[in-house]
Amino acid sequence: MSGDEARDALVGLSPPADLGDPESCRERWARARWSVLAEPGDGIAGLAIRHLGAFGALESALRHDEPPGVLELSVRDWRRACARWRPRQDDHSYALERARRVGVRLIVPGDAAWPERADDLGIHAPVALWTRGVTDSLAMPGAAVALVGARAATAYGVQVAGELAGDLSASGVTIVSGAAVGIDAAAHRACLAVDGRTVAVLAGGVDTAYPSGHAGLLTAVSSRGAVVSEVPCGTAPTKWRFLQRNRLIAALSDATVVIEAGWRSGSLNTAGHASALGRALGAVPGPVTSAASSGCHRILREYDGRCITSADDVREMLGWSNDSACAAESARDGHTDDATRVLDALSTRTPRDVVEIARRSGVASEEVSAWLGLLSLDGRAVSGERGWRRAGR
Amino acid sequence: MSGDEARDALVGLSPPADLGDPESCRERWARARWSVLAEPGDGIAGLAIRHLGAFGALESALRHDEPPGVLELSVRDWRRACARWRPRQDDHSYALERARRVGVRLIVPGDAAWPERADDLGIHAPVALWTRGVTDSLAMPGAAVALVGARAATAYGVQVAGELAGDLSASGVTIVSGAAVGIDAAAHRACLAVDGRTVAVLAGGVDTAYPSGHAGLLTAVSSRGAVVSEVPCGTAPTKWRFLQRNRLIAALSDATVVIEAGWRSGSLNTAGHASALGRALGAVPGPVTSAASSGCHRILREYDGRCITSADDVREMLGWSNDSACAAESARDGHTDDATRVLDALSTRTPRDVVEIARRSGVASEEVSAWLGLLSLDGRAVSGERGWRRAGR
Repeated sequence: MSGDEARDALVGLSPPADLGDPESCRERWARARWSVLAEPGDGIAGLAIRHLGAFGALESALRHDEPPGVLELSVRDWRRACARWRPRQDDHSYALERARRVGVRLIVPGDAAWPERADDLGIHAPVALWTRGVTDSLAMPGAAVALVGARAATAYGVQVAGELAGDLSASGVTIVSGAAVGIDAAAHRACLAVDGRTVAVLAGGVDTAYPSGHAGLLTAVSSRGAVVSEVPCGTAPTKWRFLQRNRLIAALSDATVVIEAGWRSGSLNTAGHASALGRALGAVPGPVTSAASSGCHRILREYDGRCITSADDVREMLGWSNDSACAAESARDGHTDDATRVLDALSTRTPRDVVEIARRSGVASEEVSAWLGLLSLDGRAVSGERGWRRAGR
Repeated sequence: MSGDEARDALVGLSPPADLGDPESCRERWARARWSVLAEPGDGIAGLAIRHLGAFGALESALRHDEPPGVLELSVRDWRRACARWRPRQDDHSYALERARRVGVRLIVPGDAAWPERADDLGIHAPVALWTRGVTDSLAMPGAAVALVGARAATAYGVQVAGELAGDLSASGVTIVSGAAVGIDAAAHRACLAVDGRTVAVLAGGVDTAYPSGHAGLLTAVSSRGAVVSEVPCGTAPTKWRFLQRNRLIAALSDATVVIEAGWRSGSLNTAGHASALGRALGAVPGPVTSAASSGCHRILREYDGRCITSADDVREMLGWSNDSACAAESARDGHTDDATRVLDALSTRTPRDVVEIARRSGVASEEVSAWLGLLSLDGRAVSGERGWRRAGR
């Protein structure tokens, strides 16, 4: 693709006039534009936006064959990226028009509804989110847990998914999932049944139900929570977009729990993203004779996933103490007790160093050291030559 | 109990004349005597025997109210121990006589059949073993795996126990278990079905079947392997002896795998001993809705147990490569490839230091470092600031 074609791809840069404060509206509009041009997780778009702002990045992509020096990119990489940023059929104006028609809102960083967890993806973070429903529920100030699993779920998996989702959302946890058939749908439905908050992350535009049979489910989800996607209205899901959707599910959640998954299930992709992000990761075991649980057992063995048998195990993984009062409070204010986080990041058997404990607990290293000191004073943590362990058993 | 009674308890110290070499026969005889006088795992008896020899320890217990200085024991501890060493009704001469009658052999350290793994218990190691069957199979030069679990097993547990035991013993692994109803019996039976080697460790004397319904099973086990106990013929099992029996099952095995276990199952006691001994520990997951698997899930969560779904997982835990040729060879010569042991001691996610890897692999630290160097050269291991990880996934 030539520089000229790249330019053509980016014509019509003047944002609509009705967007309020010129600066922020330009950025908002430019992010909408980027969500049409760049595939989810495009690192070069993310890099350019980080350094130049969304509008500035668009201008650079439009005006310069050379990459802006601040990006430290080769001309080759830059041009290849510009070539990728070719508008799809369902292009920008269509996407915005369609969004207006079906009442889909555009959320960008800085909006009250923007889920800050997504920014942990760095340059791979979404540039914008298109959402239906109670948009503010996207911010998820309280705990959020991804419950995901196989489409080809068994009755066992569906039952466990429902029990976990219902119990967790009753304690104030937002349940994030992918609205797929099987485990995902069971998780969303169980939340709705207890009037809990749930968020469905789609690989295609939120204006189209995928699978189509889930139109009703998605409408129900949007009445209590949000249906969200990185791609604009009218965009079809693709293999790549499903994988990137999985990364977003993991990023939006404090913990990911896989309930049933085949040996090569897409849920292992979600699990991989969760562990790469340092998020808590768990899997529900099942009969070793059930292929539908083989992926979960893989997560336990190969991903150091936590063995999840109940909602309490998930709350423990979130760093909530088992004291339900505290759990309820955590649910309300969305904060869990750091001491408990640190304690839960300790193993009774494997010594761990502060860095590792900080990673597992999500508590800053210096605070971890302080908490370990206090925990060792009341005998709940012990330090040895190879690191810290949880006391007793 | 007074010193006099202690003496009475130890009269008749002259060993039978027909025991060959005076020195060794005295020791052998004294160990038989100790196995009558001291409960399994008696640390003070073990300490005395380590420092004074079995016969010397008997003499001291007989002759001195004061503990021999080398033992560094308080007079109180020593006298309390002497008080414990009171002969049971089923006393020494009866035990020896009965053993001769039913063809039970006495094995002591130094005998070809002595299982050296037991010595890892230190001063809590058995002083002697009473055994029925193919006594030499006790030495277990090849790999030995304990398969244990609930008496109240489900059809699922019995099926998995049978599959694991059959597959493992077909690849040359000796299966160690406790001959209890449920999982234990299923494991022994599956070994016998493939003409594999299996060892049953009893909490009472090997002359009496426990449970009595397993008389036939124990006879079958003794035809292909060994039935063994620390306590002499005519000794009834007690709660304490069951717990000590569990410690011996763990000690005699390179790895312990719990197949089904309730939340407070005795199998968790065996698992605890295995992990305290630094032996590999695994558990077979099951439905979280099954109480019979709750103990296994506890082992996965609280004991850092390995998730076992197949015999291959167990072989991998033993440090066998998945290459069956190598596995077969390992089965023959009883040695597993140190490089594989080290590799299997690495996690793809959690960095581990050399000490930890040595503990998990059972390979000496200095060798571990050497292997890690080689493994990193061909890219199978990577070292980071927090330790070594297994490469790729």
